[in-house]
Amino acid sequence: MPQLRREPLFPKRWVVFAPERKQRPIDYPPPPEPSHTASPFVAGKESLTPHEVFAIRPGGGPPNSPGWTVRVVPNRFPALRIEGELLPEGIGIYDQMNGIGAHEVIIETPNPDQELEDQSVEGVTDVLRAYRARIIDLIQDVRFRYILLFKNVGLLAGASLRHPHSQLIALPVVPRVVEELLATSRSHFELKERSLFADVLQAELKSRERLVYENSAFVSFCPWASRFPFETWILPKFPAAHFHALDDFHLGLLAEVLRHVLRRIRKGLQNPAYNMILQTAPFHPSRWREAIPPEVEFRWHIEILPRLAQTAGFEYGTGFYINTTFPEEAADFLRRVCVES
Amino acid sequence: MPQLRREPLFPKRWVVFAPERKQRPIDYPPPPEPSHTASPFVAGKESLTPHEVFAIRPGGGPPNSPGWTVRVVPNRFPALRIEGELLPEGIGIYDQMNGIGAHEVIIETPNPDQELEDQSVEGVTDVLRAYRARIIDLIQDVRFRYILLFKNVGLLAGASLRHPHSQLIALPVVPRVVEELLATSRSHFELKERSLFADVLQAELKSRERLVYENSAFVSFCPWASRFPFETWILPKFPAAHFHALDDFHLGLLAEVLRHVLRRIRKGLQNPAYNMILQTAPFHPSRWREAIPPEVEFRWHIEILPRLAQTAGFEYGTGFYINTTFPEEAADFLRRVCVES
Repeated sequence: MPQLRREPLFPKRWVVFAPERKQRPIDYPPPPEPSHTASPFVAGKESLTPHEVFAIRPGGGPPNSPGWTVRVVPNRFPALRIEGELLPEGIGIYDQMNGIGAHEVIIETPNPDQELEDQSVEGVTDVLRAYRARIIDLIQDVRFRYILLFKNVGLLAGASLRHPHSQLIALPVVPRVVEELLATSRSHFELKERSLFADVLQAELKSRERLVYENSAFVSFCPWASRFPFETWILPKFPAAHFHALDDFHLGLLAEVLRHVLRRIRKGLQNPAYNMILQTAPFHPSRWREAIPPEVEFRWHIEILPRLAQTAGFEYGTGFYINTTFPEEAADFLRRVCVES
Repeated sequence: MPQLRREPLFPKRWVVFAPERKQRPIDYPPPPEPSHTASPFVAGKESLTPHEVFAIRPGGGPPNSPGWTVRVVPNRFPALRIEGELLPEGIGIYDQMNGIGAHEVIIETPNPDQELEDQSVEGVTDVLRAYRARIIDLIQDVRFRYILLFKNVGLLAGASLRHPHSQLIALPVVPRVVEELLATSRSHFELKERSLFADVLQAELKSRERLVYENSAFVSFCPWASRFPFETWILPKFPAAHFHALDDFHLGLLAEVLRHVLRRIRKGLQNPAYNMILQTAPFHPSRWREAIPPEVEFRWHIEILPRLAQTAGFEYGTGFYINTTFPEEAADFLRRVCVES
């Protein structure tokens, strides 16, 4: 059974202990003769995964059969388990609870060689639709306080399988990163009566020196204090706290920007490892009301973190980062990459 | 000129922009025929480094000549620069200041193949003596608020050179990690009138299931909520806020524990990449008084973080960690590794 433990010296930090994940398969680094037949996520091998919880099957057909374009299954090596109760407990000075949550895999395509940005805008939209559907389903479970969607690409970004996929983790606690962002948004609003996200967006749209790409609804830019070279965020231009409230029209516009940005990053940086994070607002209704009034305008957003260098002792010892590339330079470089749309 | 930028969405997070570090040499991954003649840190090549700021030369001799056993030089590719003023400035909604600080390299040995734990206890003591001497020198600079000592070993831990070395970075701001630890120690003391560090130490010495090794003055253990498999901390058994206040006798006892723990980790985990962090209390006198009363008993400590797996989207999206190995299991394993003392 996975377990959550709180660090007494850093009580906002929880660690998920998931011993079963030691057994998960790894196809990085590539075997001498790389072969994608090993992927457990291809069409026709549906029985290799746990039963699906969502799928898009344009031609219809029963669950767990081929014919899908996007398919969501529970992770076979979950960091958290859906069955059971939290049972928070103090062990002397230490805190723990059962590792209750959800850990799912969004298989973005049956084709193990088709990266997310290789898909059509409609294909990327379908992947985002799967994200949305899973959030809407899981927020009904009152044990969960937060849902994180993320994507690890490449060995240096912590991926163990190459087949294009994203992951979802539902947590029984709000992540410290999100708590901090909520607190900052709220105190900014109390001081200035303006939304922090709107202020950042306005600054970026005005200066334009860190912009990468935009359309009518979304803007992508390299943030002022980028932690990593070529770090790129995507923000909605309109107030939107919860990703899962997006309608199909806006999902399509987001897919267009996301696909475009990923294509620029892949071509410009020669296929880098990266992490992608979708940061949305906590959704538990009572918690949400307590956390932040709607006029503060928290905005969900996407962070793309290329992993061109390793984090090291400085980062772990300080919580700060050393970055060799100014975001103005990174954005200028990404803007010049030629990609067909 | 390096620059420090504050992230407006996470105002406790500063990022050091150090474009010159892009040019630093890398001897990882190994060239086809690995050769240590490339090391700029060997004896006889003192002119390849900036002028030394500290050295231990048992037989005497002038600075920047051979005959040293430990040598400290400014980093040729510094993340922060020692010359200049901070000049903090607001650029619209954004904050920045000049990248003022110190970035030094502690060359632990003239022998590029002698890892820290290969040295005698006296040799390791000399390295710790160099740490102490540099802190005592640099705390006289009132621009600096904090000094971090750390060591990156192996490509996966962010090291670019193989020659055994540690690094020192003096910062004009207190790291968020340290601010958080101070705040937690203080609120624990206010609530319980006991030292948080003493409580953790007592719990570990009582249960013993996470202990790795101890002597009369220091104890090493895998912490309750270890972020990484086989994460190991070393704490003094006595109240000690500032590492640089240690006397020679205790430096020797610390060297014995550090050397022993590193030997167990290297042998047991087969030469893993790791980061080592020395976390001491902030030293700026006025700041220190304001931050924490002495009875709170903040303790400097060492954290050893083996890097057996990559941090990924979950870690960056939450500030939490997924760990596949319970600390009880890790400590048990490390206790069973046979090393000659």
